Amino acid sequence: MFKLDQRLEQDTVWLADLPLCRVLLMNDSRYPWLVLVPRVAGTDEVFELDASQQHQLWDESRLVARIMRRVFSANKMNIATLGNVVRQFHMHVVARFEDDESWPEPVWGRGESRPYSETELAEAREKVMEVLQKTGLEFQPA
Amino acid sequence: MFKLDQRLEQDTVWLADLPLCRVLLMNDSRYPWLVLVPRVAGTDEVFELDASQQHQLWDESRLVARIMRRVFSANKMNIATLGNVVRQFHMHVVARFEDDESWPEPVWGRGESRPYSETELAEAREKVMEVLQKTGLEFQPA
Repeated sequence: MFKLDQRLEQDTVWLADLPLCRVLLMNDSRYPWLVLVPRVAGTDEVFELDASQQHQLWDESRLVARIMRRVFSANKMNIATLGNVVRQFHMHVVARFEDDESWPEPVWGRGESRPYSETELAEAREKVMEVLQKTGLEFQPA
Repeated sequence: MFKLDQRLEQDTVWLADLPLCRVLLMNDSRYPWLVLVPRVAGTDEVFELDASQQHQLWDESRLVARIMRRVFSANKMNIATLGNVVRQFHMHVVARFEDDESWPEPVWGRGESRPYSETELAEAREKVMEVLQKTGLEFQPA
């Protein structure tokens, strides 16, 4: 049975479920940063998913990225699966800005994360819901 | 018309062409590190490719990653599109090892790259050709 990795649970806020993936917001207000986790137990690498899940993952990732760029007026989208620290398979979808703290370097392992305030979190949640709606994918808010 | 970005050209060695992507080897012997570049002019973001190209890109990336892991006996595969520095769309496929120089951090912007010697490059090329053959995808050596 699928169970979210403890580290992911601790660092993120669960916002919704897409058909395949749990949609988590990284609790770091420096960047609009989603983490998509396929709800499939025991997956470390993308190619351990079955073929239809691999395609669904990609559809969810690229559609979310496309709309995120627009809704957040980002300069660039970063889409990545690393998994060197947290082994449970997860896909990062991060909106980047030319004036963000780590630009043009990647976001991982740079500086200290800045947790959202309650007001900021409510705003971010609303924007992500707008993103999910605009993808045209089915989703269930958490 | 497709023309490879100058910075990518300078930092990599062209090894082959898959149906959609040019396959480049990052000239950094610290990691087996491929860069897949769709031969489609004017692409910055994955969602600027048409739908069938987006699927083809994903097929080429995930298949190459799957076989790379095996051929290089890697601990983890990192698959990422960032593009904060080089805007031409490109997908990184990097084989990671628990004893590599940057583990568990990502590879970008860490330390100095170590160009291949001629012998090392010949070995790496041979292994990548083995990877491409084993994907079952059509490819044309450079």
